[in-house]
Amino acid sequence: MANPILIEVTRGPLVESWHRGAVAIASPSGALALQLGDIERAVYPRSAVKALQALPLVETGTADRFGFGPAEIALACGSHAGTERHTALAAAMLARAGLSPDALGCGAHPPLGAAAAKALIEKGCEPTQLHNNCSGKHAGMLATAVHLAEPTEGYCAPGHPVQQRIHRALAEISGVPLGPDVEGIDGCSVPNWAMSLCVLARTFARMVTGDGLAPARRQAVARILEACWENPELVAGRGRADTVVMRALPRQVFMKTGAEGVYCGAFPELKLGFALKIDDGAKRAAAGAAMALVERLYPAARGLMPYGPIKTWLGVEVGAIRSSPGFEAALAGLKV
Amino acid sequence: MANPILIEVTRGPLVESWHRGAVAIASPSGALALQLGDIERAVYPRSAVKALQALPLVETGTADRFGFGPAEIALACGSHAGTERHTALAAAMLARAGLSPDALGCGAHPPLGAAAAKALIEKGCEPTQLHNNCSGKHAGMLATAVHLAEPTEGYCAPGHPVQQRIHRALAEISGVPLGPDVEGIDGCSVPNWAMSLCVLARTFARMVTGDGLAPARRQAVARILEACWENPELVAGRGRADTVVMRALPRQVFMKTGAEGVYCGAFPELKLGFALKIDDGAKRAAAGAAMALVERLYPAARGLMPYGPIKTWLGVEVGAIRSSPGFEAALAGLKV
Repeated sequence: MANPILIEVTRGPLVESWHRGAVAIASPSGALALQLGDIERAVYPRSAVKALQALPLVETGTADRFGFGPAEIALACGSHAGTERHTALAAAMLARAGLSPDALGCGAHPPLGAAAAKALIEKGCEPTQLHNNCSGKHAGMLATAVHLAEPTEGYCAPGHPVQQRIHRALAEISGVPLGPDVEGIDGCSVPNWAMSLCVLARTFARMVTGDGLAPARRQAVARILEACWENPELVAGRGRADTVVMRALPRQVFMKTGAEGVYCGAFPELKLGFALKIDDGAKRAAAGAAMALVERLYPAARGLMPYGPIKTWLGVEVGAIRSSPGFEAALAGLKV
Repeated sequence: MANPILIEVTRGPLVESWHRGAVAIASPSGALALQLGDIERAVYPRSAVKALQALPLVETGTADRFGFGPAEIALACGSHAGTERHTALAAAMLARAGLSPDALGCGAHPPLGAAAAKALIEKGCEPTQLHNNCSGKHAGMLATAVHLAEPTEGYCAPGHPVQQRIHRALAEISGVPLGPDVEGIDGCSVPNWAMSLCVLARTFARMVTGDGLAPARRQAVARILEACWENPELVAGRGRADTVVMRALPRQVFMKTGAEGVYCGAFPELKLGFALKIDDGAKRAAAGAAMALVERLYPAARGLMPYGPIKTWLGVEVGAIRSSPGFEAALAGLKV
């Protein structure tokens, strides 16, 4: 059975392309408020779980040891744009742990932010590992190793204590074992464990409610979420959905994109989490579907991210990216 | 009925994403050598039909009038990388027709080629309309208007004689009416008419065989194809599939990518044309599917475009882009 079409891309009178996918919205107990497509299949959450991967950074006392405040914690949860602010903060985190940027194992890529990428070229500089959108996460991982007197060498390997701790935290909060059968390596070289969308949605609901979490973990999660809401520009960057929406609706919406068409998030007031995956991995469709979902639950989000129009290079609108009739109907029927 | 999965994207032990689509391989008469998915649905061919959109440039005598040789004709068929060579040639075409680059109506975008885009920023320049990957096509369109003493103003509009001539040529060679119900506007502001994949495949087979074409059109098509095979780097750019394959296999393979996951092409020796569309518009899947198809018919193409590996930012292979088992089986069963 193919997943349903969630997003359509039109041009003139025709639907030119379409994106299939699956969506789950769940309570902390896993009760489903919405279910579209195959939500049982294991999906790599990729960067959508960075806030969970940051749990050991707080829980081990590493953040306190090195004086990491909300900004540093937010950057550790972020897929940042690679601006000078982002890279300087990642470098400062490493410095406070006594490390240089050379300790990073994430690899280099041009800044995600177009303006930052352009500025780097204008300065005649090559991208470094600090520009990698995951450098904050990696700085946090490395700091944890330093704090616990573990070797920083090889910290990206699945068997290293840094990744083992993250694995344990993810397995505990999700309630699933996350064995080698669901272990892949992310673009930034660290392991990423696939989970079903219903488990991810439930996990994000647990994060924002604290339901079922031990007090220390509840406190750590709350500190991480608050850090992101206080510093949404460190979680993504100017003009990006996660930043724009969390700046407008802090403590109402948490949302985080992941590669290959993943989006996860949660709504504390509603005690619900969501997870979605576009089958084909398209970012435009994941962003469109996530915004449609957020806008349905928080009408104040409407118009914040006009992801819709397809334009010519002269700026004339000739098509649209829009929710499919089926997805619209499912969202309209959502009882919360 | 959903189209079949053509391309899978793996990470570790799992298939992370997948791309559905449809493929047709046909003879000039429309006899199908391969059919996968819905090949009757109308699909905008986008830039995949630039070689057909160039027909009036040759057939009206415009190319001869302004001394456009194989290089200029190839550029008119190309989605070029925006290097200095490409932009200078587009500017020269316009100059020979007595026009400046301001006459272009395609709009500006950064060069498709990463090196060209970087070089432009390093020089402190903004992209111009000449950098638009379609500037050669537009220069050819404008030259045709000048040659026939038509206004160049408004040449992008569907009702302008330039576009009407292209519409007529496309309708004639495809054998379908191409009414307003299938008319969309391309990113470069000119009309694009949707056709079914079986019609597109048949049309490309007619192009490379000349079957059913009047002598003048047969000659024009042959001149256009030869121009592309002589100048594959003007049809796309360094490292891109159309350039690499047509340089290695001139007169054996013609292939041209289009936006939103389209690929069209043909094999003169085999008297076959092909057309494919990835449902979701992904370039990686269209390129992968086209290469799988070309490699099946011309094993010499194997290894030319290693589109497969998914790597970390440090270059470690952690997944693959590969043909689905169903697509592989269909290609294996292809009798030619």
